[in-house]
Amino acid sequence: MVRENSEMKYFLEPKSVAIIGISRRSGPGSYNLMENMIQYGYEGEIFPINPKANEILGAKAYPSVNDVGRKIDLAIITLPRDLVVKSVKECIGAGIKAIIVVTQGFGDADAQGRAFQNEMVAAARRNGVRILGPNTLGVVNNFNRFTTSFMPLNREKAPVGLICQSGIFFVGAAVFSGLIGKGIDIGNGCDLGFYEALEYLGEDPETKIIAIHMEALEHTEPFLSLASRIVRKKAIVVLKTGKSKTGARAAASHTGAMAGHYEIYRAAMKQAGLLVLDEDGQMNDAVKTLLYQPPLKGDRIAVITVTGAGGIMAIDALEQHGLEMAALSESTIRTLADLSPEWLPIGNPLDIWPAVMKHGLKNVYQTVLEAVSEDPNVDGILCMCIAPNLPDFDFLDVSHALNQVVPGKKEKPVAVWLYGPNVEEIAKRFEKKKNIIVHQTIEKAAWSLSLLRKRQLFLEKAQVQ
Amino acid sequence: MVRENSEMKYFLEPKSVAIIGISRRSGPGSYNLMENMIQYGYEGEIFPINPKANEILGAKAYPSVNDVGRKIDLAIITLPRDLVVKSVKECIGAGIKAIIVVTQGFGDADAQGRAFQNEMVAAARRNGVRILGPNTLGVVNNFNRFTTSFMPLNREKAPVGLICQSGIFFVGAAVFSGLIGKGIDIGNGCDLGFYEALEYLGEDPETKIIAIHMEALEHTEPFLSLASRIVRKKAIVVLKTGKSKTGARAAASHTGAMAGHYEIYRAAMKQAGLLVLDEDGQMNDAVKTLLYQPPLKGDRIAVITVTGAGGIMAIDALEQHGLEMAALSESTIRTLADLSPEWLPIGNPLDIWPAVMKHGLKNVYQTVLEAVSEDPNVDGILCMCIAPNLPDFDFLDVSHALNQVVPGKKEKPVAVWLYGPNVEEIAKRFEKKKNIIVHQTIEKAAWSLSLLRKRQLFLEKAQVQ
Repeated sequence: MVRENSEMKYFLEPKSVAIIGISRRSGPGSYNLMENMIQYGYEGEIFPINPKANEILGAKAYPSVNDVGRKIDLAIITLPRDLVVKSVKECIGAGIKAIIVVTQGFGDADAQGRAFQNEMVAAARRNGVRILGPNTLGVVNNFNRFTTSFMPLNREKAPVGLICQSGIFFVGAAVFSGLIGKGIDIGNGCDLGFYEALEYLGEDPETKIIAIHMEALEHTEPFLSLASRIVRKKAIVVLKTGKSKTGARAAASHTGAMAGHYEIYRAAMKQAGLLVLDEDGQMNDAVKTLLYQPPLKGDRIAVITVTGAGGIMAIDALEQHGLEMAALSESTIRTLADLSPEWLPIGNPLDIWPAVMKHGLKNVYQTVLEAVSEDPNVDGILCMCIAPNLPDFDFLDVSHALNQVVPGKKEKPVAVWLYGPNVEEIAKRFEKKKNIIVHQTIEKAAWSLSLLRKRQLFLEKAQVQ
Repeated sequence: MVRENSEMKYFLEPKSVAIIGISRRSGPGSYNLMENMIQYGYEGEIFPINPKANEILGAKAYPSVNDVGRKIDLAIITLPRDLVVKSVKECIGAGIKAIIVVTQGFGDADAQGRAFQNEMVAAARRNGVRILGPNTLGVVNNFNRFTTSFMPLNREKAPVGLICQSGIFFVGAAVFSGLIGKGIDIGNGCDLGFYEALEYLGEDPETKIIAIHMEALEHTEPFLSLASRIVRKKAIVVLKTGKSKTGARAAASHTGAMAGHYEIYRAAMKQAGLLVLDEDGQMNDAVKTLLYQPPLKGDRIAVITVTGAGGIMAIDALEQHGLEMAALSESTIRTLADLSPEWLPIGNPLDIWPAVMKHGLKNVYQTVLEAVSEDPNVDGILCMCIAPNLPDFDFLDVSHALNQVVPGKKEKPVAVWLYGPNVEEIAKRFEKKKNIIVHQTIEKAAWSLSLLRKRQLFLEKAQVQ
C-alpha cells in the first residue's frame, strides 16, 4: 500500500538520531557508521545505543532507546538480525517514528529472515512508524551533511537525488562523480520504497534531477503515475538491473520483491517520460549532461574533427543514436575554406587538419567552433579533441579554445570526445567549465546528445498536452 | 592487383631514409617528422631533402634525392601536393623502391587530387616501386625505434601490429595503451593496402596479435583469404568504421575506395575468424585481453561480488554476452558458507559482503578467489572490486589479494570490474600483473570474457577442420 505522507523528511533531515548496536570499534576497516557520520559533519544530536559501553566516539552511550529521555527523530539499527525485531518494537515503544534497518538477512535471505521482516513491518504499520530497509546503507544528505552510510561519500551539494536498491550505487554514484546531493538506499524496501523516495525528491527544492537504480518494483502503477508528473519538471534517469531471466530471478531473491519482465518495465518507463539507461557506465554521464548542458532543440549536429577517420566514426555514432549531420550554412563552410588548402572538400564533419597545418590547432579550432555555434543550421556540436602528454605536446590540447567559446554560447550543447594518452589530466582542463562534458568514446559523446534530444522532445510533447 | 611480394620490410625496417620537403622549423607545434624520428631513436641514416637548407636538425641537407649519392631504402615525401608527383618520379629515377607519401589532398580530395594519385601509382607500378599513402602518418616500428609519424608515440616493444587508415588510430591506439609494437597507416591505400600490411604482420615473428582499423576495403576476397590463414595463429581484431549509410559514403570519399555494406563486411570477417568490434573504445581492452589472458575453455563463469546488486548486474552482462553462471562445486560453496552468517543463501554470484563484515575484505576475497580458481565447474572468473580513495580507505582495495592468487592460477581468465572514486590509481595496482585486466563497467568485463570465448571456439573449430 502506498500512503499519502511519506515522512521521508525524518530520514533525510533528522535533528537527532539513535544508533542502535553501534560498535566501540572505529577506524579503518571497522565500517563504523557513527564515526562516518561524525566525520561527515552532522550537526544534530547522536545517541549511541550499546548496553556494553558508557561512551562511544565521545558521545554518552545508552543501554536502550528508552534510556535516552530525549526526542529521537530517527533510529538506525545495526544489530545482528536476531535482535532487530525486538529493537524495532522498542523504538516504536519509545515513540520513534522513523527507523533505518541497516542489517542484512531478511527478505534478502531465508524463510526466517522473511518472517522477521514481515513482523517488523506489521508492528511499524500498526503504529504509524516508517521503516527504511532492511539491508540498506540508509541515506545521505549533503545539504545538511547527514549520512547513515558506513562507506566514504562525496560531499558536494549537487542538485541530484539518487534512489537505489544497493550500496553499490549509493557509494558508486556518489563517489564516481560527486554528483549526488541526496541519496536514499531503499534496500529491501519492506515499507518505504521507490514511491516514497521519489515523492520526497520530486518535491525537494534542492533536487533538480533524479537518478534511480532499480532491481525490482512493487506497485508499478502508482510509481509510474507519480513519476510521469514529476518528470515534467525534473529529469528522471533509470538504470534497471535484473534484465536477463536469471538476473530477474536473482533480483527477486535479493530483495524479496518481484522483478518482472524487463522489456515491459522499460517500455512503461519510457512511456512515462523517464530516461532509461542500457549500461552501468552511463549514469554519471547522463546526470552531468542533463544538469549542465542546454537543451538540444533539433537533430542537426555539427562535427569538428582533426581526422577524416574520426569524422566517419562521428557520422556512424550520430546516425546510430538517431541524430543527423547538419547541412552547414555557407558562412560556416566559408570560414573553414578560407583557412584550408583549396583542394579540401569542406562539409560536415568539418575536418580541420589541413587548416591546422597552415594556421595552428588552437586558432583554427576556436574559429571553427565559433562559426558552428552561430550557424542557424546547427542544433548541437560534437568536438573531437586530443589529450596529449604534457608539457611537450601541450600544443595539441584545445581545452582553452573550448573554454573561450562554449560558456558564451549557451544555446547549443557541446559534447567532447577526448582521446589520447592523457585523458584524465586533460579532461580536468576541459571540465573547468561545467557545460563542457568530456567522453572517452565517440559513441558516448553521440549518446549524450541523443539523451538531451529525448529529454527535449518529451518536454515539448508534454507542453502541448 | 595484389602482388606476391609486399616489400613492406623496406617501409618498416629501412637502413636509410630520405625525407623530402622537410621543414627547417622544429619544436612544439611544428609537426616535424624528422625531429620526431630522431627523438624516437632511429639509428639508420637520415637524408633531409630541402633545396633551401644546408643542414636540418644536425644532418646535411640535399637539394634532391639525386644529390645524396648513397643508397636510400625509403623516401618520405611531405611536399605540398602539387610537387608530389614530380618528386615520386625523381625517387623512382634515383632507384628508390619504397615511398611514403604523407601529404593529403589526393584520392581524399578533389578530381585533381585523384588524377595526381593515379599518375603516381602508374609511375610506381611501371618501375616496381611501392607507395604507402598518400594521406598517411606512415609507419612505426618500436623494435628498431623507427617512425615516420610527426605525432608522439609510445615506444613499448609490444607484440601487437596495427593496421589503420588514419592517424587517429595510429596515434590513438599507440598512445592509449602503449600496446602497439608495429603500425602501418595505409592512408588512401593507393598501392600498398590492407593485404600487404596484413601479410607483413602475419609473417612477422615479433607480432602476435593484429589490430585493424578499416574504413573501406578493396579486393575483399584475397584479404579475407589471407586473414583466414593468419588468424589460425594470430588473433585479428577489426574495428570497421563507415557503418552507417552516410558514414560509408564519407569513408568512400575520404580514401577514394568503396566502403561497401557494413553487415556484409561484418559477416564475412566473422566467418573468416576475425574478431569484429562494435565500438571505438574496445580496441585497447580487446588487445590486452587476447594478449595477456589464458583461453576461456567453457562458458561457465564464477562471479565474486561485494554487493547483491553487483551480482545481478553481472548476471545480466554475462547472459547478454552469451556466457553462463557456473554451478559452483560443493567445496566452493562450503568455503564461503563457512565464513558467512548461516542465513546467507550461497550461490553464484558469490556475495562475500556478509562474510567480509565478520572476517575482513582482503582475507575473504583471497580465500574465495582461490576456491573458484580450483573449482572444476568454473571456466572463468569475474571479480567486482572497489577503487577507494587512498590512504584512508586502503582497506577496501583487494588488488593485493588478486595479485597473490591470479598469477599462480594461469588456467582461467579473470576479468575485473573496478568501480569507485579512484579507478585510475587503483587500476595500476591491479595491473602490476599483466594477466589482471581492469574494466570500468561490468559490461566491458563480461564482454572481454566473451571475446576470449569466441577466440577459443574458433581455434577449436579450426583444429578439427
